[in-house]
Amino acid sequence: MTNILVLHGPNLNLLGVRQPEVYGKMTLDDINQELTKFTKQQKVELRIQQSNHEGDLIDAIHVGRNWADGLLINPGAFTHTSYALRDAIASVALPTVEAHLSNIHAREAFRRHSVIAPVCVGQICGFGWRSYVWGLQALLQHLADG
Amino acid sequence: MTNILVLHGPNLNLLGVRQPEVYGKMTLDDINQELTKFTKQQKVELRIQQSNHEGDLIDAIHVGRNWADGLLINPGAFTHTSYALRDAIASVALPTVEAHLSNIHAREAFRRHSVIAPVCVGQICGFGWRSYVWGLQALLQHLADG
Amino acid sequence: MTNILVLHGPNLNLLGVRQPEVYGKMTLDDINQELTKFTKQQKVELRIQQSNHEGDLIDAIHVGRNWADGLLINPGAFTHTSYALRDAIASVALPTVEAHLSNIHAREAFRRHSVIAPVCVGQICGFGWRSYVWGLQALLQHLADG
Amino acid sequence: MTNILVLHGPNLNLLGVRQPEVYGKMTLDDINQELTKFTKQQKVELRIQQSNHEGDLIDAIHVGRNWADGLLINPGAFTHTSYALRDAIASVALPTVEAHLSNIHAREAFRRHSVIAPVCVGQICGFGWRSYVWGLQALLQHLADG
Amino acid sequence: MTNILVLHGPNLNLLGVRQPEVYGKMTLDDINQELTKFTKQQKVELRIQQSNHEGDLIDAIHVGRNWADGLLINPGAFTHTSYALRDAIASVALPTVEAHLSNIHAREAFRRHSVIAPVCVGQICGFGWRSYVWGLQALLQHLADG
Amino acid sequence: MTNILVLHGPNLNLLGVRQPEVYGKMTLDDINQELTKFTKQQKVELRIQQSNHEGDLIDAIHVGRNWADGLLINPGAFTHTSYALRDAIASVALPTVEAHLSNIHAREAFRRHSVIAPVCVGQICGFGWRSYVWGLQALLQHLADG
Amino acid sequence: MTNILVLHGPNLNLLGVRQPEVYGKMTLDDINQELTKFTKQQKVELRIQQSNHEGDLIDAIHVGRNWADGLLINPGAFTHTSYALRDAIASVALPTVEAHLSNIHAREAFRRHSVIAPVCVGQICGFGWRSYVWGLQALLQHLADG
Amino acid sequence: MTNILVLHGPNLNLLGVRQPEVYGKMTLDDINQELTKFTKQQKVELRIQQSNHEGDLIDAIHVGRNWADGLLINPGAFTHTSYALRDAIASVALPTVEAHLSNIHAREAFRRHSVIAPVCVGQICGFGWRSYVWGLQALLQHLADG
Amino acid sequence: MTNILVLHGPNLNLLGVRQPEVYGKMTLDDINQELTKFTKQQKVELRIQQSNHEGDLIDAIHVGRNWADGLLINPGAFTHTSYALRDAIASVALPTVEAHLSNIHAREAFRRHSVIAPVCVGQICGFGWRSYVWGLQALLQHLADG
Amino acid sequence: MTNILVLHGPNLNLLGVRQPEVYGKMTLDDINQELTKFTKQQKVELRIQQSNHEGDLIDAIHVGRNWADGLLINPGAFTHTSYALRDAIASVALPTVEAHLSNIHAREAFRRHSVIAPVCVGQICGFGWRSYVWGLQALLQHLADG
Amino acid sequence: MTNILVLHGPNLNLLGVRQPEVYGKMTLDDINQELTKFTKQQKVELRIQQSNHEGDLIDAIHVGRNWADGLLINPGAFTHTSYALRDAIASVALPTVEAHLSNIHAREAFRRHSVIAPVCVGQICGFGWRSYVWGLQALLQHLADG
Amino acid sequence: MTNILVLHGPNLNLLGVRQPEVYGKMTLDDINQELTKFTKQQKVELRIQQSNHEGDLIDAIHVGRNWADGLLINPGAFTHTSYALRDAIASVALPTVEAHLSNIHAREAFRRHSVIAPVCVGQICGFGWRSYVWGLQALLQHLADG
Repeated sequence: MTNILVLHGPNLNLLGVRQPEVYGKMTLDDINQELTKFTKQQKVELRIQQSNHEGDLIDAIHVGRNWADGLLINPGAFTHTSYALRDAIASVALPTVEAHLSNIHAREAFRRHSVIAPVCVGQICGFGWRSYVWGLQALLQHLADG
Repeated sequence: MTNILVLHGPNLNLLGVRQPEVYGKMTLDDINQELTKFTKQQKVELRIQQSNHEGDLIDAIHVGRNWADGLLINPGAFTHTSYALRDAIASVALPTVEAHLSNIHAREAFRRHSVIAPVCVGQICGFGWRSYVWGLQALLQHLADG
Repeated sequence: MTNILVLHGPNLNLLGVRQPEVYGKMTLDDINQELTKFTKQQKVELRIQQSNHEGDLIDAIHVGRNWADGLLINPGAFTHTSYALRDAIASVALPTVEAHLSNIHAREAFRRHSVIAPVCVGQICGFGWRSYVWGLQALLQHLADG
Repeated sequence: MTNILVLHGPNLNLLGVRQPEVYGKMTLDDINQELTKFTKQQKVELRIQQSNHEGDLIDAIHVGRNWADGLLINPGAFTHTSYALRDAIASVALPTVEAHLSNIHAREAFRRHSVIAPVCVGQICGFGWRSYVWGLQALLQHLADG
Repeated sequence: MTNILVLHGPNLNLLGVRQPEVYGKMTLDDINQELTKFTKQQKVELRIQQSNHEGDLIDAIHVGRNWADGLLINPGAFTHTSYALRDAIASVALPTVEAHLSNIHAREAFRRHSVIAPVCVGQICGFGWRSYVWGLQALLQHLADG
Repeated sequence: MTNILVLHGPNLNLLGVRQPEVYGKMTLDDINQELTKFTKQQKVELRIQQSNHEGDLIDAIHVGRNWADGLLINPGAFTHTSYALRDAIASVALPTVEAHLSNIHAREAFRRHSVIAPVCVGQICGFGWRSYVWGLQALLQHLADG
Repeated sequence: MTNILVLHGPNLNLLGVRQPEVYGKMTLDDINQELTKFTKQQKVELRIQQSNHEGDLIDAIHVGRNWADGLLINPGAFTHTSYALRDAIASVALPTVEAHLSNIHAREAFRRHSVIAPVCVGQICGFGWRSYVWGLQALLQHLADG
Repeated sequence: MTNILVLHGPNLNLLGVRQPEVYGKMTLDDINQELTKFTKQQKVELRIQQSNHEGDLIDAIHVGRNWADGLLINPGAFTHTSYALRDAIASVALPTVEAHLSNIHAREAFRRHSVIAPVCVGQICGFGWRSYVWGLQALLQHLADG
Repeated sequence: MTNILVLHGPNLNLLGVRQPEVYGKMTLDDINQELTKFTKQQKVELRIQQSNHEGDLIDAIHVGRNWADGLLINPGAFTHTSYALRDAIASVALPTVEAHLSNIHAREAFRRHSVIAPVCVGQICGFGWRSYVWGLQALLQHLADG
Repeated sequence: MTNILVLHGPNLNLLGVRQPEVYGKMTLDDINQELTKFTKQQKVELRIQQSNHEGDLIDAIHVGRNWADGLLINPGAFTHTSYALRDAIASVALPTVEAHLSNIHAREAFRRHSVIAPVCVGQICGFGWRSYVWGLQALLQHLADG
Repeated sequence: MTNILVLHGPNLNLLGVRQPEVYGKMTLDDINQELTKFTKQQKVELRIQQSNHEGDLIDAIHVGRNWADGLLINPGAFTHTSYALRDAIASVALPTVEAHLSNIHAREAFRRHSVIAPVCVGQICGFGWRSYVWGLQALLQHLADG
Repeated sequence: MTNILVLHGPNLNLLGVRQPEVYGKMTLDDINQELTKFTKQQKVELRIQQSNHEGDLIDAIHVGRNWADGLLINPGAFTHTSYALRDAIASVALPTVEAHLSNIHAREAFRRHSVIAPVCVGQICGFGWRSYVWGLQALLQHLADG
């Protein structure tokens, strides 16, 4: 059994509502169902959490430390500033994949830099809700490769 | 009826106590009463919240999304760094006015830049507690102008 | 009797003509009448001047030094570069409020920095012609507060 | 039938040889075979080209303009400097996915910035040769979504 | 009839005198005569003005707003700093061509950046007094092209 | 009796687990016991709190305002970005000592700058858990010196 | 007889196709014919070459060294980065005019700086295909002036 | 007979009034009389002019070109921004001495840089009104030395 | 027996005299006696040296190489610029503690950066002469911990 | 037998022609003969190639990978920008010496930085054609030292 | 009796020899004699010292502390980097005048910034050896003014 | 007879001891003997000096002025900061070669910039003690070439 912690950062609870021309029409529940669907025929368990609180995300990573085999995270706007989140990931040493709905490298200057990336295996961005699914796919493969 | 969400950012609960030579002697309650007094003879309802937690402010904005017509906010020190707060305001698309007690453009370099401003209608700063009252006045007028 | 000097910086004489989608449809005369109307029932005298010449604005501030109790100024594009204007305000030591029609902190990078702000009481921006009226309101209150 | 142009930038012909601790042990031929294998049961035709010449990559993009439906590219070190390559992609207006073997955002400062990204749909990096396969998967899906 | 406003910025009245090794031996009158000669057999009227005062140039642009069809300007040293001049051009929305005697992009760093350029059709520099003539030629063609 | 508030910032709850080569093998409980042991024969009371939430730390500082005589803080990754935390310390005007387990000035560039330092008495870093003990020692001495 | 080398940089072969709203509808052949037409009644011979390869452009400049009297060049995206191209022009010491279809000084920040300009006589930009014709006119005049 | 043009920049007409703790208690007339007194027993004629208008100062320099042997200037706040003033001095090629009442290199960052200095013989600052007298002394000596 | 080299950098010989509001009233001799007192009941020998010469400090470190077990240093103003001093410490590979009387991270920008820190065990600053004593304490402990 | 690949970058084919006051009067053939002469009585074989094409240089390095023992390169203007060339050298892991005719550290700012240097053994510059000979000498010695 | 310490920084002992086109033909002895001559009929005693050692200059300032009434210094190249020298001047709190032979603000960028200036009364530069004499004159006057 | 001054900067006396993995195992004496050996059969006299004192190095250069024909220098860490050393070399106008044991352009950012280079003939770095020998060889050749 592979255990994956999935974390959604700030404002992602508004997906489908917030600037749909940038982020798409799927709600967060829709995305979570897609993730579940993706893992259906695999021995994978998901725990999914969203928070607008940087501290909640850190707490969740800490909690996940003894349960999870890997972390899939869209840190939202914390991507660009939260060294605390980065330290949390480094602390628990879980293989981590960073996913973004939009292509952050094609947007405002401040969105092009991720302080989280240096502690991640890889990054997928720009494919809407599918960034999550493919991020999960990549994370599972990474774990399978050992 | 016009519904206005009023948000006070970190450390503003200490108003009247914290560096009164910079921020004045009025407490936050005093200011809130002034805001209420200001709206007395208008069809305006206020919901006022203070928090030292960035996540609480974001949550409050999300909650306000279906109730409020406009947002009056003093983001405190989050003004200069919180892209998450900025995204929250952009997500709910509420007309927003940014208010500051002190003239942030006349203080330390790091206080002169607002990452919140690009998603606001306007900014009022430097007039102590009256920045709030006039910010509310401006917001109500903006809403009245359609 | 309170005497207020009102100064409009470069290109503001074209108001109503110049990029109305940014600056609104009111002409400068309209705005000046609104200011006058605002002071009608108060003991306030206004002297209003517009110039495209940095030197004229400085001269006007110097002249105002012995007459005025306060200064309301929209320095236009001089906001971002004119240390001479800033020194003029500092020299005469008149309480000064800075007003801008548009939210300068939401526009091009060069418009987000005011070299005038450090010598002002406060700043109001983003409310079109009403930025002036509320700037005047704030200035009068500041003077009344002593 | 969907036609996909696959471009490998400078030094990628040395894959499997060049710094295997960073880029993995698969050769470029191995990767190309994986890409072909991936498309086996789909109506997809691939044209694959590698070059150490910026001009060759630009020429290939121009040629691909009338044949291809999408572009999958790993621009290698040109990622960080080649505005000519970026203009080529913008010129032909082909949906483009950017793939990198390593997580470029976790390496030297100069590798963290892509001048190509602003003209791409999305970016996948850090998953070794699988970045290509998943990049192709994402590109095909993007085209299928219309 | 096509009406063209021609503006010469600060220190250009000294042409032929000022650093002739950089700016050439023609006086400003010589240049103005060349411009007139150029328009002789065309239905073009020129109004030419030089000033060392930024405010005069702005005033002239405002005045030209109702008469001129286009603006030819050498902003001199204001090129690099005057946002007020830039706003003036943007305000009147006259098609504008920027001309410089010397190749400003081959000189001191501060001369390589034009704050005026973003509101102009195009720029010609480095050809001495002929930069003006060809700037006029380009402006007239631009107007003729509609 | 001297009352000291001790605050541990984000990820410090993982001490002994998180990158022990950087931060040492002591757990946070071990450190807290060392702090208590240190104060045993002195009239000192400690209140110790850890949080991964910036807002909790701010709240704790506010609460401490009426009880504590001094503050010992390791702000963790908030050291480098949290102006809100800095304002909290400035607001309550408690003498504050900043402690870090590692020598932050010998690590990545972003860790060398403390936005908290300007509101502190002093800083001790690089001595593992003993940074805390000596920070407490320094704070008590500072208070004793009046 | 005056011999002029005309060089078109990367992606200019797509003219008329590539972003016509920025670069116009004329093809490169159309432009070349306009250049030929312009020189019809003058003793001028043109050699025209386009390449997407920086090295080809350098080679062409070297070859042109013994034949050409002047160089007209639109370096395309190499304008902003190619010190090799700049050195090539400096090496052969041919009088050179730099032409751009669009007003590069009014576009993205990276397009506003030319590393080629310091070795050129002058620059013309913003007038579509006519930038070439007028650049040629300027170059011929420069050569005629000796 | 030696002819010296003395120029006082913006806000210097307020001397004795403006921030006397920074600029001293002497009025501009007092300073001018000191300058005249200094030249009494020498064959020196002074023409002294103050203006808050950059253009006036440039005009005065142009006018002085045929009469003056040297220029003594305190450019005030134009020191830091006016390339037009710098070009004016370079154009007339008059030996120029730059004087400042305060030690500009000991004040705010923006006051520590002079764009005028590169076209001056030397600079004297920090000695109040005597900076002028000694600047005049230095200029006369420079002229005497040939 | 533990041997400790104590080095005081430039201007520290003036302690008690130099800006006592910043650096305190203790003389350097007083501090040295405190250090000696501190080591009284331990098997520790101190060699203490002060110099205003960067070269002397480097020489002393070299000399100390064969005698000392550790280095306690306040590099004074050399903290911010002396790579030679840093290399000296790295060369002899002595465990080193950096001490500062004032909290350098709360002062002018240039004082907030230490080029010495990357070759030190830790840093203590802001506690006046006690920074030294506690620095010594920390160094001895570090050596004792092996 | 020691095999050395010698690569000359862009514009070096013009040596003896191009700015001889900077680069000397020797042609590239002259230099190549000097290199051959230098290796005459040693068991050294040279393969020498010049190209103005970055891609050719990369190809040559790749080809050299199985034959050469070391690389001597003057990357010309690619020195300052070509990460692709740098990656090529890193990929083949050949000991590499960087040579420049002129002292690049004494020239324009952009020439003072080499992106190639971090993958080289050493650098020799400023000695004209002899930089090559001594670079070869150094490379052979480095290989001999094993 | 007024006692003045005169300090000459590094390389000034070579005056008359070192780049005379920049620094003039006078030797340091000549300058010292001019200084002595200047003070002849005044009650002034001079102590003059030159050193190429930063530490010697600091020592001299410390020694001067109990004897001198003021300091005249040309810090030479230490002007731009020596915070230790600056601290020395601040420590002894002697009124100080900074003199430079050349106009440092008209030279290379690194020479335009003085880290010494913020602790000086004023600065005189650009007048060759006379910068010293007038610097002395200014210092004596400053002391006389009390 | 050719006279060469050889200067070794700070910490080089520790060669063979200091970080041998970076700087090699040869002592400074060993290197000096290699230099002497190199000059054995040539009419060359060497004077060799090492110092950790910037002032000593400057003094030595001054002394060398009347004796030496050239200077070979490894300025150690002064390479990156000492404008005084640079001025000393420029003052005596001796042909100078800069040598470094390690490849400074492949190390920390601060080591990649030499303030000494602009006054040197050339630079050799990265070849351990042989950088000196080849630097001497290059210097002698430079002198022989006249």
